[in-house]
Amino acid sequence: MCELLGMECNVPTDIVFSFSGLRQRGGKTAPHADGWGLALYDGPVARVFLDPDPAVESPLARFVAENPIKTLLAIGHVRKRTRGPVCVANTHPFVRELWGRHWVFAHNGTVEGARKKKLGRFRPLGTTDSEHACCLLLGALDSAFPGYPRRPTELWQAVAELGGEIGAGGTFNFLLGDGRHLFARCATNLHYLVRKAPFGPATLADDDVRVDFSELTTPTDRVAVVATRPLTTNEVWTQGKPGELWVFDRGALRATLPSVAKPTPRARRSA
Amino acid sequence: MCELLGMECNVPTDIVFSFSGLRQRGGKTAPHADGWGLALYDGPVARVFLDPDPAVESPLARFVAENPIKTLLAIGHVRKRTRGPVCVANTHPFVRELWGRHWVFAHNGTVEGARKKKLGRFRPLGTTDSEHACCLLLGALDSAFPGYPRRPTELWQAVAELGGEIGAGGTFNFLLGDGRHLFARCATNLHYLVRKAPFGPATLADDDVRVDFSELTTPTDRVAVVATRPLTTNEVWTQGKPGELWVFDRGALRATLPSVAKPTPRARRSA
Repeated sequence: MCELLGMECNVPTDIVFSFSGLRQRGGKTAPHADGWGLALYDGPVARVFLDPDPAVESPLARFVAENPIKTLLAIGHVRKRTRGPVCVANTHPFVRELWGRHWVFAHNGTVEGARKKKLGRFRPLGTTDSEHACCLLLGALDSAFPGYPRRPTELWQAVAELGGEIGAGGTFNFLLGDGRHLFARCATNLHYLVRKAPFGPATLADDDVRVDFSELTTPTDRVAVVATRPLTTNEVWTQGKPGELWVFDRGALRATLPSVAKPTPRARRSA
Repeated sequence: MCELLGMECNVPTDIVFSFSGLRQRGGKTAPHADGWGLALYDGPVARVFLDPDPAVESPLARFVAENPIKTLLAIGHVRKRTRGPVCVANTHPFVRELWGRHWVFAHNGTVEGARKKKLGRFRPLGTTDSEHACCLLLGALDSAFPGYPRRPTELWQAVAELGGEIGAGGTFNFLLGDGRHLFARCATNLHYLVRKAPFGPATLADDDVRVDFSELTTPTDRVAVVATRPLTTNEVWTQGKPGELWVFDRGALRATLPSVAKPTPRARRSA
């Protein structure tokens, strides 16, 4: 399996603290040593750092941890391979351009059934079921809308429905970013918290690091953090329920939507 | 304007020597200080390092220069802005997925006329004429072929023709990679060399660095390097002619094709 990390904020924030915790799970405190990736948005564009080496040993991961880049939206991943060999092509997150912006996707779980579904305009570069699912999801959005939806709630609903469809019969915990929102779907295991005033200290679960956010923030700052497992030991994390999609925007949880497959006509008849 | 760097090899090679020279032109020996980027292919996938800061000062550029990553195909760029502000979105090279592989594009010059042409499936993320031209070129390839052409020469011809069409009336020096080939179009200024046995020493034009490639290579190695201006002082570089496209594959120049706009029917009649 793998572990996910997402961050979505109302002021540019660096992800160094959370990434330092995730990095430890890439071969030290957890066995997700088959590569790591981190996407940092700058407007509609994501800069992506990818490395098939273990995050805990990777010089590039050390560089990212030591050279903070501020962003409003970030998606990270440490991989423990289940499908597809260890290589750059199979390293999450995956990125595609749609409607003139980058879409970034990372997955935890397996959705082998997704491979049987027909792809739209996007094709995988590697061999994971995860990237196939990413291409399915973005291809379906491309088919469903002529451009970025004017009413964001239409997009949220579409992502929720597609998450349910593609994840049916598999384990489809995912993070998806479009430069405006962070979408986070829980299938089995996902947690979030929103840091806001009054800020206090936080201590990493996986490393001997403590930060007092009251020294680094202003009273209006809000930072939502999503992770497979809580990254800190002294903060309250909310656990996701299977089949729900969170939508984060400007550092707040804007919506929680059901993200489950609709019953097929036959199933409905037999119910 | 900007400066381009491409490398295409028959054995995995790091680009540190050439990139070290290019980096100096990003603010020290030349004024291309408005960002830099470097794409390093791993099979069909490009890892891309982007930074809107001057290459000569950038910690990420230093990291890339100090942590060699071997590759068969690389495309780099240092920017001196002419169109579009300095930001990540406007930093070359640009990347899109087409036919299940990454296509990487970097440009030197201006092609303002390209903005009037209708885009295909790819949309720009930023505001440069360069990225618009990239999207035009890849969109036209997508329309012209149902998938990656079986006969590579059909692809080479298409890239040559599209280079001529999109570049008509502008200055369209570009590098394009597809993970198999390096395409290099000369409009005004482009040079290449192929390093092969017998290897010898090379000295950078922009930094006090000398490498003896005979100590680092085997007799069958071949490395093609393309740059806006020669990067070394003691090697023979071949200068491109305006309107020609070079195609490099496995470290060798495989084809030189005319890349000029076809005369329109009216022009043909009046000739």
